[in-house]
Amino acid sequence: MITVIKLGGNIIDDEIQLNEFLLQLSHLSGKKILVHGGGKLATALSSKLGIVAEMLNGRRVTDAETLKVITMVYAGWINKSVVAKLQALNCNAIGLSGADGNSVKSEKRSPLPIDYGFVGDPLEVNVELLLNLMHAGFAPVVAPVTHDGKGQLLNTNADTMASVIASALCKKEDVQLLYCFEKNGVLKNVADEKNIFPELTNEQTEELKLIGKIHSGMLPKLKAGFSAKTNGVHRVVIGNAMQLENLASKNSECTLLHL
Amino acid sequence: MITVIKLGGNIIDDEIQLNEFLLQLSHLSGKKILVHGGGKLATALSSKLGIVAEMLNGRRVTDAETLKVITMVYAGWINKSVVAKLQALNCNAIGLSGADGNSVKSEKRSPLPIDYGFVGDPLEVNVELLLNLMHAGFAPVVAPVTHDGKGQLLNTNADTMASVIASALCKKEDVQLLYCFEKNGVLKNVADEKNIFPELTNEQTEELKLIGKIHSGMLPKLKAGFSAKTNGVHRVVIGNAMQLENLASKNSECTLLHL
Repeated sequence: MITVIKLGGNIIDDEIQLNEFLLQLSHLSGKKILVHGGGKLATALSSKLGIVAEMLNGRRVTDAETLKVITMVYAGWINKSVVAKLQALNCNAIGLSGADGNSVKSEKRSPLPIDYGFVGDPLEVNVELLLNLMHAGFAPVVAPVTHDGKGQLLNTNADTMASVIASALCKKEDVQLLYCFEKNGVLKNVADEKNIFPELTNEQTEELKLIGKIHSGMLPKLKAGFSAKTNGVHRVVIGNAMQLENLASKNSECTLLHL
Repeated sequence: MITVIKLGGNIIDDEIQLNEFLLQLSHLSGKKILVHGGGKLATALSSKLGIVAEMLNGRRVTDAETLKVITMVYAGWINKSVVAKLQALNCNAIGLSGADGNSVKSEKRSPLPIDYGFVGDPLEVNVELLLNLMHAGFAPVVAPVTHDGKGQLLNTNADTMASVIASALCKKEDVQLLYCFEKNGVLKNVADEKNIFPELTNEQTEELKLIGKIHSGMLPKLKAGFSAKTNGVHRVVIGNAMQLENLASKNSECTLLHL
């Protein structure tokens, strides 16, 4: 069983929670891959550098300067800090962007109808590389930056990266995919942190989406999660990063996705 | 034969020269490792961010903010840009900091007599990891950032990194070490770019140093190079990055180090 874990940005921004999460990650037995998001550091750095964020439909456009900041922060500072912390916990982490060993090749999103700039949608995962590293005892730590194979780095959604990696690996081995963030799962009501959906099907999600019962920020994560299920990933859950060990061993409250 | 190549910062700052160097690197047959320096981007970014460089004895002190900038620029932007460019040239590059796979563990330099901050001197190279990657067809691209094994990233001199990596690898296989930069070798006279020392021994270097005939910027490179020779590296040269293929196949003017 391979465990693919996606860690959300809010945990990365909180050093105490990040350390706790990484400690639990280091205790997980079996093969594991961590895909991390970005956190607020990239936005803070852009703002300090006076890069004005261009927004389209509520989404940030990745221009050349923003791509540089994202690569520096995600593939540089966050990735290497996480790897160094895991090494200190005796977890033999190895950091990768999608360009490294061609681990995740993507294609630049079409500029039509909306040009989001240097954003890439994953096309292909180097399953052999990831499996070989895990067989050799390494835990890949993947930053959400990919490449197009023609020399261009691309900003890629971390939820999608985790889904695509889990989907590719499950053709070879049993895979579970854990989306870890600061909540216990998908909330039934955004005002109530305690009530989560213990299970969600794709159909239920579509209905809840229509009546506006699911927070818009959850939708890309759910879409990525259901896509992994469709592709054959054994178990997909959304849950609390502080419960990683319990999430992995099925002992924690969380939202379990079903097709 | 393994070729360890160190690329200096001035070439990294010049995209046309960088592309030409990487094209030649992609043509080199056999196992190869690239260690890259930093270039001016880290200084430019620090200055934009208002980080005031503290200098001691002409050397920059690596405080916590500077370490972050260095990790972002060296292990993030430069490392990933170089890897993506090499991938586009069909060279299966994989970027590493010293923390990744514990490839280079270092120890924080003693704060006495001078506290240079988060600077690390390499202690140990993970030869098995580097050899396994090269046997599997990858070309490691190493950024000059290491870790202490206790979770701390450390700024490390790239010339030293290249020397230490070459020294460790040569216990297992024949190694040549090529220091590539913007000049043809060690100049006999700083005012004359055309006249280089075709060969230098450690003793000659010490004499030239005493009479001030070698530019101070060359001394750490020469020290690192002679250290590699002492440790058993077969061939150590200092030469022009634009002549990489010729340097590797011994057809170019350069400075060859002898003990």
